[in-house]
Amino acid sequence: MSTESEEDFFRSLRVAIVGLGLMGGSLALALRGRVRAVLGVDTHAPTRQQALERGAVDTVSADPADLLPQADVVVLATPVQSILHLLERLPDLHPGRAVVLDVGSTKREILAAMVHLPQRFDPLGGHPMCGKEHSSFEHAEADLYHGAAFALCPLERTSAHARQVAESLVQAVGARPLWLDAETHDRWVAATSHLPYLLASALASSVPPQAAPLAGPGYRSTSRLASQPADLMLEVLASNRDYLLTTLRRAQLRLDLLAQALEAEDWQSLRALLAESAHQRESLLNLHGEKPHESHREPRRTPAR
Amino acid sequence: MSTESEEDFFRSLRVAIVGLGLMGGSLALALRGRVRAVLGVDTHAPTRQQALERGAVDTVSADPADLLPQADVVVLATPVQSILHLLERLPDLHPGRAVVLDVGSTKREILAAMVHLPQRFDPLGGHPMCGKEHSSFEHAEADLYHGAAFALCPLERTSAHARQVAESLVQAVGARPLWLDAETHDRWVAATSHLPYLLASALASSVPPQAAPLAGPGYRSTSRLASQPADLMLEVLASNRDYLLTTLRRAQLRLDLLAQALEAEDWQSLRALLAESAHQRESLLNLHGEKPHESHREPRRTPAR
Repeated sequence: MSTESEEDFFRSLRVAIVGLGLMGGSLALALRGRVRAVLGVDTHAPTRQQALERGAVDTVSADPADLLPQADVVVLATPVQSILHLLERLPDLHPGRAVVLDVGSTKREILAAMVHLPQRFDPLGGHPMCGKEHSSFEHAEADLYHGAAFALCPLERTSAHARQVAESLVQAVGARPLWLDAETHDRWVAATSHLPYLLASALASSVPPQAAPLAGPGYRSTSRLASQPADLMLEVLASNRDYLLTTLRRAQLRLDLLAQALEAEDWQSLRALLAESAHQRESLLNLHGEKPHESHREPRRTPAR
Repeated sequence: MSTESEEDFFRSLRVAIVGLGLMGGSLALALRGRVRAVLGVDTHAPTRQQALERGAVDTVSADPADLLPQADVVVLATPVQSILHLLERLPDLHPGRAVVLDVGSTKREILAAMVHLPQRFDPLGGHPMCGKEHSSFEHAEADLYHGAAFALCPLERTSAHARQVAESLVQAVGARPLWLDAETHDRWVAATSHLPYLLASALASSVPPQAAPLAGPGYRSTSRLASQPADLMLEVLASNRDYLLTTLRRAQLRLDLLAQALEAEDWQSLRALLAESAHQRESLLNLHGEKPHESHREPRRTPAR
């Protein structure tokens, strides 16, 4: 909950964003003008050019060592393995104090790495629950974060200051902070993000191109996640393998039950399974809908809380 | 391909629509004003009232025997089992000649029933590739069919006249006719519609309500179809059991492969499976995008072909 002075303080910060893909680029677009400076780092020259042209950053460099020393807040917005690598290098890249936040898709490995940062860093994990199939800067947009839950996972060492900075950042981009521990985060996203990806992928492999003329909105919606870049997703799945296997086995058992009922023409059981799932989805979405921040799609127009 | 005189002829027809739910109601809204009369039949009194209030129909009744005798075209837009029942009753409900089209989700059973209609009826099967999770009239909209493929499955006995009427109807509501046989239709929709439904249902059952705060657009999109009414879908699945079991087993095998690679930490295999699926989805959607009718979203503005 930001007070006016906390908002003023947040506006005085210089925020470096390492990785200007979909997530980092959208964050830069949303933060620009709401902080003292957005400093962008990306190894890809055309992305740096586009980020400048679209006004996403105040300044940009290929080398984190150029800009990180000026940053009060460092946001790591690269793929998971690269975040882990950057955390190792961070003490050499930034000589001073900084709040360090990442936006990686899983949190346990990253928080385990953050533990080893020198005490001048004030780290915590983050994960905004939004995205698209396409991961490059050209798909970035300022309102990508609007209305999304933004998971925040503190370490034991995370200061009240860093928590406040993270909340201010989340609210500045129109998202709603959701504090939880890394274990719970990873267990839940295994079910809400990584399982859907594998199911979408299995669907995409099961529909032959000849069936294209009969592929309507149902196919598109259910298979959408399968188009996410395999390389990026592989790192995510690998970093959440245990929880993902648990939830995947649950879904496989459910498919077995559905197949058995269909095979046996046991319509009563099939109906019960289908109705139960529909009910569970409605319950979950209603529950979600009741979250107090749910309707905050344009938080700049709502009163500060 | 409509000529001007065929369009004029189509405008002279009285079309009865039995079942004013999402599909029948949307068809009525789209056809109103483009044919001589839209005659609506629905057993649900509030639906009849709404259909009149929204101008979807010229006249409406609870009893098909009231209106069907006036119809040149009878469209059966009820659930699959009810369509089969109506086809049995049709000779008693309509004393004259009529083109008979249905919009049921599977085609083999329905075409097998159409074979037994008296010769004064000129039947064919139809299935528009569009829809929503919600099936009632209140969700109906005139542009539901815009841009959608509309499968049309002729019988041997289907006349050139009935084919032309069906094509004109499909084009009048902004959809594109797709002629194919019932076997092919049912085999394809098992993969493009019914398998996605079962995968969505398995996902919905695997995500506990506690995970709601971390359920983002990926969960929503992949699980969307699970909210379809179980009773309606049960009839559809039952009428396509054989093809659905085949495609479901294929998807289950794929999930087994994904689980095995994840279990064994065989990242190379996992990556190959995921990349192959992503590629297959892109190929299918590109193929779909190249269909000549794909861009005909507003066919009244395009030249007659």
